[in-house]
Amino acid sequence: MTVWISRRPDADIDADLAASRAAGGALAGVRLAVKDNVDAAGLPTTAACPQFAYRPESDAPAVAALRAAGAVVVGKTNLDQFATGLVGTRSPYGAVSDTRRPAYISGGSSSGSAAAVASGQADIAIGTDTAGSGRVPAGLQGIVGIKPTLGVISTEGVVPACESYDCVTIFARDLNQANTAMAAMAAAGDRAWPADIRVAAPPNPVVAVPSTLPALDETWQAAFAAAVQTLEKAGAQIVTVDIEPFLAAARLLYDGALVSERYAAVGEFIDGHPDAELDPTVARIVTGARDIPAHRLIADRREVARLRAVAMTSLQGADALLVPTAPLHPTLDEVAADPVGVNSTMGTYTNFCNLFDLCGVAVPTGTAGDAQFGVTVLARAFDDAVALDIAALAADVEAPQQVWPLAVADHTELVVFGAHLRGGPLVWQLTDLGARWAGELTTAPRYRMTVLPTTPPKPAITRVPEGSDGAALLGHRWLLSPAALGRFLAALPAPMQLGKVEFDDGSWRTAFAADASAATGPDISEYGSWPAAIAAGAV
Amino acid sequence: MTVWISRRPDADIDADLAASRAAGGALAGVRLAVKDNVDAAGLPTTAACPQFAYRPESDAPAVAALRAAGAVVVGKTNLDQFATGLVGTRSPYGAVSDTRRPAYISGGSSSGSAAAVASGQADIAIGTDTAGSGRVPAGLQGIVGIKPTLGVISTEGVVPACESYDCVTIFARDLNQANTAMAAMAAAGDRAWPADIRVAAPPNPVVAVPSTLPALDETWQAAFAAAVQTLEKAGAQIVTVDIEPFLAAARLLYDGALVSERYAAVGEFIDGHPDAELDPTVARIVTGARDIPAHRLIADRREVARLRAVAMTSLQGADALLVPTAPLHPTLDEVAADPVGVNSTMGTYTNFCNLFDLCGVAVPTGTAGDAQFGVTVLARAFDDAVALDIAALAADVEAPQQVWPLAVADHTELVVFGAHLRGGPLVWQLTDLGARWAGELTTAPRYRMTVLPTTPPKPAITRVPEGSDGAALLGHRWLLSPAALGRFLAALPAPMQLGKVEFDDGSWRTAFAADASAATGPDISEYGSWPAAIAAGAV
Repeated sequence: MTVWISRRPDADIDADLAASRAAGGALAGVRLAVKDNVDAAGLPTTAACPQFAYRPESDAPAVAALRAAGAVVVGKTNLDQFATGLVGTRSPYGAVSDTRRPAYISGGSSSGSAAAVASGQADIAIGTDTAGSGRVPAGLQGIVGIKPTLGVISTEGVVPACESYDCVTIFARDLNQANTAMAAMAAAGDRAWPADIRVAAPPNPVVAVPSTLPALDETWQAAFAAAVQTLEKAGAQIVTVDIEPFLAAARLLYDGALVSERYAAVGEFIDGHPDAELDPTVARIVTGARDIPAHRLIADRREVARLRAVAMTSLQGADALLVPTAPLHPTLDEVAADPVGVNSTMGTYTNFCNLFDLCGVAVPTGTAGDAQFGVTVLARAFDDAVALDIAALAADVEAPQQVWPLAVADHTELVVFGAHLRGGPLVWQLTDLGARWAGELTTAPRYRMTVLPTTPPKPAITRVPEGSDGAALLGHRWLLSPAALGRFLAALPAPMQLGKVEFDDGSWRTAFAADASAATGPDISEYGSWPAAIAAGAV
Repeated sequence: MTVWISRRPDADIDADLAASRAAGGALAGVRLAVKDNVDAAGLPTTAACPQFAYRPESDAPAVAALRAAGAVVVGKTNLDQFATGLVGTRSPYGAVSDTRRPAYISGGSSSGSAAAVASGQADIAIGTDTAGSGRVPAGLQGIVGIKPTLGVISTEGVVPACESYDCVTIFARDLNQANTAMAAMAAAGDRAWPADIRVAAPPNPVVAVPSTLPALDETWQAAFAAAVQTLEKAGAQIVTVDIEPFLAAARLLYDGALVSERYAAVGEFIDGHPDAELDPTVARIVTGARDIPAHRLIADRREVARLRAVAMTSLQGADALLVPTAPLHPTLDEVAADPVGVNSTMGTYTNFCNLFDLCGVAVPTGTAGDAQFGVTVLARAFDDAVALDIAALAADVEAPQQVWPLAVADHTELVVFGAHLRGGPLVWQLTDLGARWAGELTTAPRYRMTVLPTTPPKPAITRVPEGSDGAALLGHRWLLSPAALGRFLAALPAPMQLGKVEFDDGSWRTAFAADASAATGPDISEYGSWPAAIAAGAV
């Protein structure tokens, strides 16, 4: 039972679950495991070092937000000490092993969190991720891990590992549950969302894949190829990219001066507590960074920036980069024999992510031999919704409709009636701007629809004069960023206009209208919708 | 003649000026001085160290952009060696003195650039700014200095001083000339402009001023008070702010570990060239940073981030912070007697700016005793247009209409006809979103204007049917960010609509229209404009 470092009594958990179900909320009745480097009031925070332990007075904002939505904390989970590692074996509380094959590792550093979810001991779990700790164990345990854009979730109340690159993550058994948790947790964010984010992936996303796959054997390469094929079948366009600049940055995270951030985080504690139960590998990594000069850190950061520019240029035109989450699944013995080497290999496809300010979603896509296999969709900062949509395609599941960035990022809506209906000939004008389809709705019976002599043909929606009979017309809702709406309007040709239209639920929403002086074409209101009018041959 | 480190022959300059005038361009016939830590093809780059000199093969992008707009390079200007200093005396090429009072310093580190412009030897000059080098000498020399948001001007081809905080600046004798140069230079930028920038200060900006003014004597305090009074008379609302968190960050720039960036920049050169002509103070500062450990740099950066959060919170609700550009004007002898102490005092109101990711505009506002006095308007990153507008108010000059961020940042336009005309009752809905008034224009004679029964009353602009007689109506153009346009539309109530309207120059522009079914009020088209209809009592 190395999954938990501390666990609340069953009776307390059950009572809270009952109360949560009664109170309701997006996460009512959901059991939450919290990685033990994140504060949860009532339980100690150890970061997997007993002598480091303290009793936080309050929840980290991320924990508080999940509790506020109904989640019930089960306990605090084991981790690679001070979140330094990707293996799950570097803990005086014991190594966490694979939930299915006890001789194998769980992956880390969020080892206990991932194992708690994979084994059904929790429904969701908080992890943290600097080098891949929120993704690698998700991959090895066959669950979902969401690593959001740096800074959008508060890291207050989190023991820093490598402060500039740390972030809070979510594990869950499916994408929907993970998304719901993220939506709740993201309310606690720090970094402002830009006004022009994409809230959806395009219908046929361009996905880059590495042209070579270092560290994967044939079985694992085949598992990755299968995931790529799934994406392709779902309509993605696959392009290849040279992975070397990404891997070069990855190597800098542990082999360069960036590791001095780990000394800044816990070095003073380690130096001051010679009797602390320290994992020898972790202690060596942290204290080895004590004397790295600042100018070397600056030089390495400059090199990261240079590599990032090269890498991001290579991704131009791509919506995301698809990588294997982990390149192999080692045994506990293999890690013990070469703790640093194996750990380093585990991070091949994760280490560069936070250095490059990418977000990522790890999803299971099958097996590689006896191991569970998963891929991670990496996308640019704030393209979290794009990553989520593409991850759903790769995992062959339905993407959540209410993607979590919509819960926190400012956005607007636009209702359309004609060529911008989903499947319509001009829908690209919206999807290119990152708009997300959000369902159908019907106007109040106060409108008429006529055919405009445009190419392609469009309907003109105009309101009937007070007292006249009008029709209720079918529309589609799109959600989009404020800048996307502004750009769409700026590009919109006459005689189309945008303004408030009345709907049958009494709401007035921003929607398409038209210059009435141009609405002189055939009246097709009787069909109730543009597609119906087309189907009837009236257009 | 310590202003120039290298200067092109007069005949070459004159020939280029003649050619530039003939070719035209925004900067045709404008003489450009380039600080000698910025590459200009054909002249060596010394950074004020003869042994460091190299001959760049090409212009820095900033120089190339100014040349492309017509500017003619006169020569390379003296500076505090490696841009380390705010005094202008730290150079083996000699100290640069005040252009009016030779016993006084020019200010630095862009000493020669500021002096070249102040003395009329150049019309504009490129400076650089890390701790205030683009502002302090502008203040002491009675000229304008624009220090843009970090990263919007490329620092390629610039010898780094403190790479994370370096930026390229412009000096000119007036705000318009400086703005024109920035517009040309900004085309070479790196950092993307957000989609929701403000392109104007609000009509009555809220300006924070320090509640105390450390380092200023009574005469200088009175000069600052006069500038504040000018701002107040121009309609600004003045609030006070505790300057201490700002000054605490300022102290970290030289007294803390951040100075290790200076070692990263030129430390290896200094260590490898024991015979180089080094300014002793500069050499001591740079080499003193050789052994600073990385974890101290990380801790200091964390402290900067903490102070920034405190400072930015204290500025909530304010559009800008007004500070004295320099707190005093010392003599060459005073600097020689205490080179570090005086330099440090000179940076009191400038050092924190780049650490906090602020932009700034330094303008002359009068005198303090015999010295020239100026203030700097500091604003949030990307609020460069806001800073420019408020600086114009403080200097009591007309702000440029085509502020330079408009030359590079994506923006849209909206033409209004009624309550959003400049001076109208709803104009705050645009100015709160950072919209900038951009002049009048008239529709094609194809429209009618009726009165809507709204509060406040608004006009409905509708297009007349093909073949009918319409009126030409007066509108006002506003420029605004894409997100501002999207937000404006999202908040716009029925029956107002936005779409393309035809203007008398044949253009179709995004403008106000209205739901024709609501346009049943009195027709006031004959008045030609909403204000005329009001004046005539028709509304």
